[in-house]
Amino acid sequence: MTKPARVPSLELHRLGEIGLENFAPYLMNRIMGRYNAALQQEMAALGLTTPQMRSLAVLSVIDGILIRELAVYAVVQQSTLSRALEALDRDGMIRRETDAEDSRATRVFLTDAGRAAYERLWPHMVEAYQAMFAGISDAEQQAFVGTLKTMLRNIRKHDF
Amino acid sequence: MTKPARVPSLELHRLGEIGLENFAPYLMNRIMGRYNAALQQEMAALGLTTPQMRSLAVLSVIDGILIRELAVYAVVQQSTLSRALEALDRDGMIRRETDAEDSRATRVFLTDAGRAAYERLWPHMVEAYQAMFAGISDAEQQAFVGTLKTMLRNIRKHDF
Repeated sequence: MTKPARVPSLELHRLGEIGLENFAPYLMNRIMGRYNAALQQEMAALGLTTPQMRSLAVLSVIDGILIRELAVYAVVQQSTLSRALEALDRDGMIRRETDAEDSRATRVFLTDAGRAAYERLWPHMVEAYQAMFAGISDAEQQAFVGTLKTMLRNIRKHDF
Repeated sequence: MTKPARVPSLELHRLGEIGLENFAPYLMNRIMGRYNAALQQEMAALGLTTPQMRSLAVLSVIDGILIRELAVYAVVQQSTLSRALEALDRDGMIRRETDAEDSRATRVFLTDAGRAAYERLWPHMVEAYQAMFAGISDAEQQAFVGTLKTMLRNIRKHDF
């Protein structure tokens, strides 16, 4: 376990005084940049972009989700998501269906081919995850995820 | 403090079993998406893009940095960074100078106008940061940043 850094009260300090290396948004950016880069090669091999990969990952958990919900879970703008789904549909990885209760809403489903692509990606997501958390105890990981959950509840605009 | 979530061993589980809401990369993605969205309005008012904003933020801490180092700190691809710096230079927010020791390397400096733009952004960064960490104790924040630092050390490709 790393010695925790002192994070000074932000009201009173500038970024230079806090230090980039103590500023959580900077650290999270750097880490997610490396995580995404680690998956880049396998995504390219599968002909997938990041929004497409995130869509497959979300659909592997919540199949048949509404497009507007998928945009939130995948953290992709609706217009970008539309193009990503268009491509995934063309490649036979998803299918889109009008919602039974709301004819203006569309649900997205993973096809067998989409699930197979996701199954090829998942081991690389595990590898990138494990590289990230190397040497970090289960207890520390659990506390970390607990803090992330509180943070997301603090700032999310949706119920989920 | 939130009750920590149980994070099952990833080797043995699929994302659907872990649950998206317990998967750190998903949570970090969602949170950074909201953080960036929170800064969007002020960035737009200043005519800045995300790579430009990140460059100004890094330069506010490490002025005169080499472009290739700035790309790492700002988590921006070199080609995207070049365009961002071109625009910032045109707007008089930075200046670029050939490194005294390596004529192929370029250093970037913040101008007074660039610092003024950053000074306008910083209160919004503080606000977004505080919204994120609302109700999270200093001790929990410090532990969280400590874990982030270990994670970055685990996966970074550079010495910093």
